[in-house]
Amino acid sequence: MTYRLYYWPKIQGRGELVRLPLEAVGAKYVDVARTAGVPAMMKVMKDPRLKTPSFAPPFLQAGKLVIGQVANILLYLGDHHDLAPKTEAGRLWAHQVQLTITDFFAEVHDTHHPISTGLYYEDQKHEAKRRTRAFLDERLPKFLGWFEDVIARNGSKKGWSIGNQLTYVDTSLFQIVEGLRYAFPKATKKRLADAPRIVRVSDLVAAQPRVDAYLASDRRIAFNEDGIFRHYAELDE
Amino acid sequence: MTYRLYYWPKIQGRGELVRLPLEAVGAKYVDVARTAGVPAMMKVMKDPRLKTPSFAPPFLQAGKLVIGQVANILLYLGDHHDLAPKTEAGRLWAHQVQLTITDFFAEVHDTHHPISTGLYYEDQKHEAKRRTRAFLDERLPKFLGWFEDVIARNGSKKGWSIGNQLTYVDTSLFQIVEGLRYAFPKATKKRLADAPRIVRVSDLVAAQPRVDAYLASDRRIAFNEDGIFRHYAELDE
Repeated sequence: MTYRLYYWPKIQGRGELVRLPLEAVGAKYVDVARTAGVPAMMKVMKDPRLKTPSFAPPFLQAGKLVIGQVANILLYLGDHHDLAPKTEAGRLWAHQVQLTITDFFAEVHDTHHPISTGLYYEDQKHEAKRRTRAFLDERLPKFLGWFEDVIARNGSKKGWSIGNQLTYVDTSLFQIVEGLRYAFPKATKKRLADAPRIVRVSDLVAAQPRVDAYLASDRRIAFNEDGIFRHYAELDE
Repeated sequence: MTYRLYYWPKIQGRGELVRLPLEAVGAKYVDVARTAGVPAMMKVMKDPRLKTPSFAPPFLQAGKLVIGQVANILLYLGDHHDLAPKTEAGRLWAHQVQLTITDFFAEVHDTHHPISTGLYYEDQKHEAKRRTRAFLDERLPKFLGWFEDVIARNGSKKGWSIGNQLTYVDTSLFQIVEGLRYAFPKATKKRLADAPRIVRVSDLVAAQPRVDAYLASDRRIAFNEDGIFRHYAELDE
């Protein structure tokens, strides 16, 4: 089966949390809006016959299923590609961590858009500065501390976050590390010094041959100021 | 089995999305912090031996499982109490809608806390006004329109949102309607006039005998200005 991934074509954004595990397991997929354009994506998204429309991209077509919401897509991929534990307890735990990553992404997004997604960054710059300050000083250490604790309690000798092998939580933590390093290089350097386990997970993911090949390919979009992780020097202080 | 629910004792907050389905099915549960106090909750949350610690309440103890993240708890309750479809497609769809409700709750929270959860509302009142304006004008109609569409596409004669019976999505939509009516009575009255299906779901949930009894009991905490849905008259304009 070839998956069809629907996401904005010019950003990593939340779609990257789906692209990474697809690439890591060598799944066949078409990145629809990148190959056929945004209208092709919107046509599916707005199709009145679709039983499971998404509030927003990304969504993944898997045979007859059309699945929206990143963590939900990963729940599916976890089951079908051995990217999560098989027991009920293990599945729920991996998903719980992923949902906390979802919360983290929303907070990162709001650092540059604290007032409205309908306004430009330039129109909420002052508020963005205040929100980013609170994010970097309070929320970032709290989230990183929790992720670090998750990995520590897992106790995998290799260093994985869930069980003893690669899961979608690991690819998501990799994306967090990459994104933070891009958006807030100064603050991140300081914060990651206290999070060696997260850095280790990130290194393990990057060292997966398929991920390594993906990152070197033109399928990996560069970070930019339209995505979730944006670099505005004035915010990284 | 008696569940143990861990959540802040003086607010509905996100915990209410778990209390409602527990009440709707007549499940036995102890609301730990309300009966034994917040320290009893924190002791479990911070227990270093716990394999699955939560980033924040609520979390639910179900036998040997300790499950965090509202949508994840509902995924579990859906399976064990017939509060969600049984097929893979149906389970994923109900969960997708619930995850969009999670997003909605985060946005409602940020109307009164757009800058930082670490600051009082009074210290971000100006920004709250701007964010709420954008929320009520742009985001609220978009979310309500999507929920309305979800129910319409389901096509249940009775009016349920998923399949032909009560699910955790219905109890969550009920909570959204109640919360909006409390927080933004003026704006909500206008908006819900365009969302008859959501109102119908809410009425169906409220008419469930066990829910009705719960709402009349002192187990239902009143809305207040410490929860997610807060009423500040100046924001509802």
